[in-house]
Amino acid sequence: MLMNPLPWPDGHRCAVSITWDVDVDSGLRYAQGDKADALAATLSFVKYSPRVALPRLMQVFSALGLRLTFFVPGWVIENYPAAIEQIQRHGHEIGLHGYMHERSNQLTRQEEAAVLEKALRAYEKHIGGRPRGWRAPGFAFSANSLDLLVEAGFSYDSSLMGDDVPYVIQGASGQLLELPTDWTLDDWPHYMHNRDFNYTMPISAPARAMEVFRAEFDAAHRYGAMWISVWHPFLSGRLAKLHAVVELVDYMRSKEGVWFARLEEICDHVKGLHRDGLWQPTIEQLATDLP
Amino acid sequence: MLMNPLPWPDGHRCAVSITWDVDVDSGLRYAQGDKADALAATLSFVKYSPRVALPRLMQVFSALGLRLTFFVPGWVIENYPAAIEQIQRHGHEIGLHGYMHERSNQLTRQEEAAVLEKALRAYEKHIGGRPRGWRAPGFAFSANSLDLLVEAGFSYDSSLMGDDVPYVIQGASGQLLELPTDWTLDDWPHYMHNRDFNYTMPISAPARAMEVFRAEFDAAHRYGAMWISVWHPFLSGRLAKLHAVVELVDYMRSKEGVWFARLEEICDHVKGLHRDGLWQPTIEQLATDLP
Amino acid sequence: MLMNPLPWPDGHRCAVSITWDVDVDSGLRYAQGDKADALAATLSFVKYSPRVALPRLMQVFSALGLRLTFFVPGWVIENYPAAIEQIQRHGHEIGLHGYMHERSNQLTRQEEAAVLEKALRAYEKHIGGRPRGWRAPGFAFSANSLDLLVEAGFSYDSSLMGDDVPYVIQGASGQLLELPTDWTLDDWPHYMHNRDFNYTMPISAPARAMEVFRAEFDAAHRYGAMWISVWHPFLSGRLAKLHAVVELVDYMRSKEGVWFARLEEICDHVKGLHRDGLWQPTIEQLATDLP
Amino acid sequence: MLMNPLPWPDGHRCAVSITWDVDVDSGLRYAQGDKADALAATLSFVKYSPRVALPRLMQVFSALGLRLTFFVPGWVIENYPAAIEQIQRHGHEIGLHGYMHERSNQLTRQEEAAVLEKALRAYEKHIGGRPRGWRAPGFAFSANSLDLLVEAGFSYDSSLMGDDVPYVIQGASGQLLELPTDWTLDDWPHYMHNRDFNYTMPISAPARAMEVFRAEFDAAHRYGAMWISVWHPFLSGRLAKLHAVVELVDYMRSKEGVWFARLEEICDHVKGLHRDGLWQPTIEQLATDLP
Repeated sequence: MLMNPLPWPDGHRCAVSITWDVDVDSGLRYAQGDKADALAATLSFVKYSPRVALPRLMQVFSALGLRLTFFVPGWVIENYPAAIEQIQRHGHEIGLHGYMHERSNQLTRQEEAAVLEKALRAYEKHIGGRPRGWRAPGFAFSANSLDLLVEAGFSYDSSLMGDDVPYVIQGASGQLLELPTDWTLDDWPHYMHNRDFNYTMPISAPARAMEVFRAEFDAAHRYGAMWISVWHPFLSGRLAKLHAVVELVDYMRSKEGVWFARLEEICDHVKGLHRDGLWQPTIEQLATDLP
Repeated sequence: MLMNPLPWPDGHRCAVSITWDVDVDSGLRYAQGDKADALAATLSFVKYSPRVALPRLMQVFSALGLRLTFFVPGWVIENYPAAIEQIQRHGHEIGLHGYMHERSNQLTRQEEAAVLEKALRAYEKHIGGRPRGWRAPGFAFSANSLDLLVEAGFSYDSSLMGDDVPYVIQGASGQLLELPTDWTLDDWPHYMHNRDFNYTMPISAPARAMEVFRAEFDAAHRYGAMWISVWHPFLSGRLAKLHAVVELVDYMRSKEGVWFARLEEICDHVKGLHRDGLWQPTIEQLATDLP
Repeated sequence: MLMNPLPWPDGHRCAVSITWDVDVDSGLRYAQGDKADALAATLSFVKYSPRVALPRLMQVFSALGLRLTFFVPGWVIENYPAAIEQIQRHGHEIGLHGYMHERSNQLTRQEEAAVLEKALRAYEKHIGGRPRGWRAPGFAFSANSLDLLVEAGFSYDSSLMGDDVPYVIQGASGQLLELPTDWTLDDWPHYMHNRDFNYTMPISAPARAMEVFRAEFDAAHRYGAMWISVWHPFLSGRLAKLHAVVELVDYMRSKEGVWFARLEEICDHVKGLHRDGLWQPTIEQLATDLP
Repeated sequence: MLMNPLPWPDGHRCAVSITWDVDVDSGLRYAQGDKADALAATLSFVKYSPRVALPRLMQVFSALGLRLTFFVPGWVIENYPAAIEQIQRHGHEIGLHGYMHERSNQLTRQEEAAVLEKALRAYEKHIGGRPRGWRAPGFAFSANSLDLLVEAGFSYDSSLMGDDVPYVIQGASGQLLELPTDWTLDDWPHYMHNRDFNYTMPISAPARAMEVFRAEFDAAHRYGAMWISVWHPFLSGRLAKLHAVVELVDYMRSKEGVWFARLEEICDHVKGLHRDGLWQPTIEQLATDLP
């Protein structure tokens, strides 16, 4: 079923990467501007992330012995230092997720470059060094994003949806490894109901959301693909929902040959395969704007 | 899984508080203004509350031996005296829910203060005394709400979503106990389909909605948290849906250590723990507007 | 659980009335005006009603030995004579459903009166006599509808949602029997997905929709209430969906004491009870506009 | 249950035609214009079609021994020649689906004629000959479509929803065979969640979507009807979803008398029945604009 299957390390059958987008109130503030301060209930809902969900995630995944990938906007890095410190201390990977959860494809190239620069400065100052990975807020990867990320030295992106295995995206400035996912593995369509975010959908029981995520896992496991969740601590980190996540991990662990990895580990693995001539990723030429 | 677990009374494992928002036609009139009178079917739908659902709730929860918490807008208190009298007579708690189901965060501080004053006068006149609890209509707690509620002498709020256990919110005027819930325990996302309310979602079978509510209960019971429903008599008080609620209560009662409590009882318990030095709630500084 | 239970005929426990709203293309034309002719696929979808669904309904319910109630707009009566003739010939009841599926509460009293007059003329000319029952298109019963229906000599309305048993609505001109239902028994929230109608919801499997309708039936059967479906031939009359309806009827028939009745029969029964002093319906004073 | 049942070949009980609409990025570009290039994630999502889903579909349906029908916009034919070549080489049927996924009923007759001409030229140049079948993009068959398709020599359309068996649509220029389906067999309502397409619905687990499709199949099989899927490679061609499709095909094959056919085969069969006087399709006069 895969067009370009790759060998996973140590004979594993598939790769599972549980990744979280730590928006807290950045996206709400970006969308609502000055009005966000008046939305106290929704603020409390998204701030459940650093208050409760992130410490809980640290405990739960320590107990499970798993290190994960967290994508964090620069502004969140600056404003929630305790949360960031916890994530770092527990050995999780931290990638960037915009500065203020901007929708990049609504920015000019100059604006997007400035946002990226600001986010990188926040990363460098509070975390140290440079991030290896990027996820575009709202999946709004723009026609400029690739070149800007290449120029900034990123190793991989995880915002696109063009395959079930890693591939390479090629722009004017060079190449970037793409570790794709899709909306199906996002928790938003299942759990978000909030008028301040303009989402008025039914809320799924955790068991129903897990049915979706598990079906994707079963297929990845059967066919040797990659499974990358796009979860939010203020949604999937709530009590009942995280309990269901733990059960899903238990289920995954009951299957043979599942490689649980941070995205940076998948990135290293793919680059190693490439270097050793063991596998060639497909290359997707992205339409990119001229600078 | 809890960041700041508290002891529940008498060794109970978790707290369950079934709470109802008794909007009747206040919210519809607030949103639709003069046009509301022309919406006869939707009016009949929301007035099912005092006509049928509230008397039924009285019977059902008397038979179950449970006293609950009802949040009622001041205008509803004034206009549906028989319903209010029933709720009082059955020993249920009555909290405030705005005057006309206003979205507080769309009001100025002056407007919100006037609304609160009007609601309190209705409460005092028709119920007597002052309410201990508040739930913001539409979860639209504003940047002024905390200070206004503190000044008005409220003991607790139940509109925010920042934890699974009680916590304290701190504003310029002082502190208020927060008894948080979230959209997941609201019946609106599961049952509301009505163009006059601008909701065009599928309607869930009661068994599917209960699957959501029960998953939240199971997690609260397992981890020692608090479970607070946000239900509406014109939705969950309808025949098939209330039957499912009764089955859910039976299920909860089949579990050990569930403390069924009104919010005012949870409030007293928490204040007692605090006074006796047995537990410290976390304190959340809310961004509040200057007066 | 019922506030004002009534005895059903011959010791039956509950009443079931399967009713259909036969909109065909009236509602689409009313909403879209001249643009409707360009919507060929949606036109074919709604015209499935007279082409396929209605003849099928005749066969299926003849085989089941059930006579039902159909609400038809005047314009549909005029334009689909073969469908109307079939419904009549099979002994089903025909009530009115506007002239062009107008949303009455968006009309002035004069406009609404003219629409009603036109619909009554179509009824008289093509069906003969006067209808006994009315269902407001889109549940958009207005503040004038009651008086206009009373003046026109209707016996009952089935558009409101204020109880689980029949009740009386009182206006300036007199009284009308109300046979209430609610959105939960409408098939629209489960099956409608069509951009020309501006509905972009998931489509339920028939088994999931039946779960909703059956839960309502189970409650009606348990507690002695009335169950009135609001179905559309172009939705529930499609092959798989009608098959599920037949299974639902089989299920209902496997229960004891279910009275299958047309709405006019329920109307007669209630009026008989009232006349014989065996039961008093509650009376709801409707806010009505002055003429 | 069928109003005009037809004999299927070799005593089969029902016909199943798995058809795919291969939009790739045509619809997104048509709707978003110049902005589409900035929507990199959604572009990668829809380009998953030619990159991954179409080669996979070739493999999977070769292994199943089934030849299918693909509807492709002219622009996609021009821009994805490798995908088209694969579809042809595997013996699948290729019908037309607009040029740029235009919503025909938002075009003038002249515009629609020009679009059709352009699409036919692309077809002739890259595929050869003329297509036999048409599906209107977005089900937006216009009041001019029938006449234009007749004049262009099409044999059948599969965009309308007026029956469960083939029928004939009659316009000013002549007749066309209609092979109807409906939204229920489209995968969009179950799987599409994407803000660039303006769809914010929950995403179904594949098992839930299959429940919908299988219920339609069960009814078609029971009653002798036709089952025509409207699937999109970038939705149902993803890994877990296609796995579920294969399981659905296995289920269908476990039933007796299922005729798997391309739409052109159904077309030939119906024309043969008609020629031999074995069955008469009903004729639906479509309201068509004057030229």
